[in-house]
Amino acid sequence: GKAPAGLVDDPFKSDPERDSSLMVRSSRPCNAETPASELGTFITPAEKFYVRNHLWVPDVGDAEDHRLTIELIDGEEVTYSVADLRKNFREYNITATLQCSGNRRAHMTAGSRPTNGLQWQIGAISTATWTGVRLRDVLAHAGVDLNEPDEDIKHAQFVGAEAYGASISFDKAIDRHGDVMLVYAMNGQALPRDHGYPLRVLVPGHVAARSVKWLNKVILSGDESTSQWQKRDYKCFGPNVASHNVNWDDAPAIQETPVQSAITGVRQVKGDRLRDSDLARVYGLEEESVVLEGYAFAGGGREIIRVDVSPDNGKTWWQAQLLPHDKDVHDDNQKAWAWKQWRLALPTHALHEHFCVKAVDESYNSQPEQFDAFYNFRGNLANGWHRVPVSSRSKD
Amino acid sequence: GKAPAGLVDDPFKSDPERDSSLMVRSSRPCNAETPASELGTFITPAEKFYVRNHLWVPDVGDAEDHRLTIELIDGEEVTYSVADLRKNFREYNITATLQCSGNRRAHMTAGSRPTNGLQWQIGAISTATWTGVRLRDVLAHAGVDLNEPDEDIKHAQFVGAEAYGASISFDKAIDRHGDVMLVYAMNGQALPRDHGYPLRVLVPGHVAARSVKWLNKVILSGDESTSQWQKRDYKCFGPNVASHNVNWDDAPAIQETPVQSAITGVRQVKGDRLRDSDLARVYGLEEESVVLEGYAFAGGGREIIRVDVSPDNGKTWWQAQLLPHDKDVHDDNQKAWAWKQWRLALPTHALHEHFCVKAVDESYNSQPEQFDAFYNFRGNLANGWHRVPVSSRSKD
Ligand SMILES: [Mo]
Ligand SMILES: [Mo]
Repeated sequence: GKAPAGLVDDPFKSDPERDSSLMVRSSRPCNAETPASELGTFITPAEKFYVRNHLWVPDVGDAEDHRLTIELIDGEEVTYSVADLRKNFREYNITATLQCSGNRRAHMTAGSRPTNGLQWQIGAISTATWTGVRLRDVLAHAGVDLNEPDEDIKHAQFVGAEAYGASISFDKAIDRHGDVMLVYAMNGQALPRDHGYPLRVLVPGHVAARSVKWLNKVILSGDESTSQWQKRDYKCFGPNVASHNVNWDDAPAIQETPVQSAITGVRQVKGDRLRDSDLARVYGLEEESVVLEGYAFAGGGREIIRVDVSPDNGKTWWQAQLLPHDKDVHDDNQKAWAWKQWRLALPTHALHEHFCVKAVDESYNSQPEQFDAFYNFRGNLANGWHRVPVSSRSKD
Repeated sequence: GKAPAGLVDDPFKSDPERDSSLMVRSSRPCNAETPASELGTFITPAEKFYVRNHLWVPDVGDAEDHRLTIELIDGEEVTYSVADLRKNFREYNITATLQCSGNRRAHMTAGSRPTNGLQWQIGAISTATWTGVRLRDVLAHAGVDLNEPDEDIKHAQFVGAEAYGASISFDKAIDRHGDVMLVYAMNGQALPRDHGYPLRVLVPGHVAARSVKWLNKVILSGDESTSQWQKRDYKCFGPNVASHNVNWDDAPAIQETPVQSAITGVRQVKGDRLRDSDLARVYGLEEESVVLEGYAFAGGGREIIRVDVSPDNGKTWWQAQLLPHDKDVHDDNQKAWAWKQWRLALPTHALHEHFCVKAVDESYNSQPEQFDAFYNFRGNLANGWHRVPVSSRSKD
């Protein structure tokens, strides 16, 4: 529970140690992004996975003592230990990208105007294989009729041990193809404390703020969570709306996220080195070239179908190669819950001022060119084209 | 079936008469858009609904003689008359917008470069209440196990009586919340011949090209339809791709469509007339004003959550009022399959050069500012901001 500062011991004192390569945006609570050098692999190592904490990391003690309570619509409660979940339900592995609603907020600030919130660059996004059980299976066991559910149930609220709360639609919670999970392992190891040990929700395709960590309670309800993270912080308003004139109820809580992409690396490559590589086979480039790498991701399980890269600030465009998943990733995914890595080799003569990237998803939605017309004062869902100066390339 | 010209009678000779207000883009086959004056109502009258025919209108004779054949994955066939469908299955009413993939293609041409295809303005989109039975119910009756379907079934192909064909994913075809229908009535009347009499498919949230008219056959298959309308015409490629260098397999067939919006009317209104109106209550405008009206729509059942209008070519933005549905529309919709009508009153002093509109859907996707970077040589899914000269306003 929440404890007023000064009345008790420092609630952050039992926060875990973090990997020193993470780029810390705030330390209490800990918010730290994955460095660009770690964004080029399909699976992010757990210790390099970005950390987004709203409060302290609760010390939940032993996983054996942790309990999850499901509160049904009639108020009845059913309680499970993590061992109960492991023992009684089929286990699934879902490989999913989580992205903070504030990813690339710093780009919106730089491209338009100041925004409220942590100034994340491109690293408030990571991907892992999550192991656990399906929420729908547990709800069915707890007494919910999945075929003819009570029509009063509209939302599934989640409450974490540190007092964070959020909700998703009940439809998503029980969607046969929604892959909403109660997760106890990450990349084949026990969930780290920063990522929700011993139990978290995974809501693939939705903004990460709904994948509540240190999960204590699931409440089936006619109402959304009343937390500030549901009712206020994670919403977008028009570019003309500011904190002094906002009506928070005018916008819905962010759930599925729009198309996003970023350039994570730019390397100068000599023609003779390129000739032996995959990229030369794809693009047939022989002259001195630049290799760009990055990620692209869309919410809602919508697959990325194309990544367009410009070497000249948007005048001409090339299609990047979308890389296949790691061969050793085995998952039960029903939709495209994970990002696509991409790369592209461009001849040096084509470069002019800025590289840009924009991705397209299977519904043919894409990203805005600039930030001004999509500015929102909270700086959420900053998905304008990612621009990187041509001069930033490192020599190979 | 298809008949070579010259060998038989003119196949277009039995095409129906059309309403004279439709704006004809081609006459053989008939392609005609809804005039802007008819785009301002939530339900489009059937005779004003845009017509998009790829070939002639087949003369299927009496509805009583028409048959629908379901071809199962093992090749077995089950046949239904329209009367069978009406008698044996629960009837649903779904209010859905259909939009041609070429809607607003003329704007892409004008905003960027020439495109192949009919040069539609803003009227290749309309909305109706469709009455029929659920495809999933009929498939279950024909022998498909909806809970554990044969894993070889990946697509549902549709074949029309005039030889048109297209397909959708089998997942969409049987999605409990997908509302895919076999339709025999439109706005409470028998389906007009131009819209598929006596039976068509309705695939809400997908590009209209999948809602096959004059439906003869549904084929469950491991493969997509092999028609040109599935494999070629209805795809988008990068702005650098042209007809001479396209690899048609590089892009997936368009199914769900991106966010779209348009301005359908601009009226100058005197302050004293505005004072008595709804708009004055919402916006409190007293001076001479301009009232803008339009539509906004997103595929995939994603609700339009905001419409931003600029009176000065994108420099400043105002939020339009999203109008409630007509009170007399009763439907069984499970998602936001229909467009939203919107309107906004703006003070005359704010106007400068161009009005612009862009909409935002519940996944917070929006529309591109310009056409150049999203140009595709087929001119599909032209959803750049709709710009209208301020000088175009009509006096009230
Ligand atoms: Mo977040
Ligand atoms: Mo179309």
